[in-house]
Amino acid sequence: MTNETDLVLERTLDAPIDLVWMAYTDPEHLKQWFAPKPYQITECQLDLTPGGIFRIRMVGPDGFDTGHGTPGCVLEVEDQRKLTWTSALGPGYRPNEMGEGCESFPFTAIVTFEDAGNGKTAYRAVAIHKDIADKEAHEKMGFHDGWGTVASQLEEHARSLAVRA
Amino acid sequence: MTNETDLVLERTLDAPIDLVWMAYTDPEHLKQWFAPKPYQITECQLDLTPGGIFRIRMVGPDGFDTGHGTPGCVLEVEDQRKLTWTSALGPGYRPNEMGEGCESFPFTAIVTFEDAGNGKTAYRAVAIHKDIADKEAHEKMGFHDGWGTVASQLEEHARSLAVRA
Repeated sequence: MTNETDLVLERTLDAPIDLVWMAYTDPEHLKQWFAPKPYQITECQLDLTPGGIFRIRMVGPDGFDTGHGTPGCVLEVEDQRKLTWTSALGPGYRPNEMGEGCESFPFTAIVTFEDAGNGKTAYRAVAIHKDIADKEAHEKMGFHDGWGTVASQLEEHARSLAVRA
Repeated sequence: MTNETDLVLERTLDAPIDLVWMAYTDPEHLKQWFAPKPYQITECQLDLTPGGIFRIRMVGPDGFDTGHGTPGCVLEVEDQRKLTWTSALGPGYRPNEMGEGCESFPFTAIVTFEDAGNGKTAYRAVAIHKDIADKEAHEKMGFHDGWGTVASQLEEHARSLAVRA
């Protein structure tokens, strides 16, 4: 289903699928790992239902601050299997005004999880764009490094939940 | 839920809800009424599932022809209750390149149906836009006349299904 306008990150995470799902879908957990450190998420809204809001505020060194950010829209939710959201729409499916930086082009993220056995989880994130130019812009912004780094942070955070449980 | 960037059409249709729903959601029926005559729909694809395609080709007098058109995306389907789709995304939730005319701005359509008793159906179509400029552009393109005319054609077509049944 992917094509030349897509970016794909695949990783087997050493953490069980229920904890990975929890770390991904609970805003309080998501804040802990979704930004590549030293960047951090200071605000997160995630309404886990089609049409629901997905909004983050990211801050970082040198005064970097996305502000309240343009809210995206949740499209699909399959418990412990799939989460799809888009920046092309806001909550209630209202089309978004595009902004700056990461918000200068619309993309849809399709994130899937599969039990890989032995307490591991196969994690796959696909970012789909309207054309190759947007894909390349996203790539140049550091898609692979960024999404790769936060995948490791996701793994670490999900594992920490097992220890706490 | 509507605001100043929305356009709303409300109409009580003199046709029962099951036939109105059928007329709206079966591509072969939709082709019969979705374009204000003398315009007509010569091609229609509607995959009635979230992420599915919604595409029409409209042709009219003086060589008017939308061509294959930019495919939109179905977002929500509630049998005999609700159909939501958007032109901001294509099938599989891929963000769309905006085109010309009606396709120059993204909008989401939320169409709801309610049994109004006595074989009638309360029909409501809301078009939501990213800003007032797009709403006004849509209005100037003839939203109220166009969607009003096709609501009457929808009523007529749904009634004809009762006669045939």
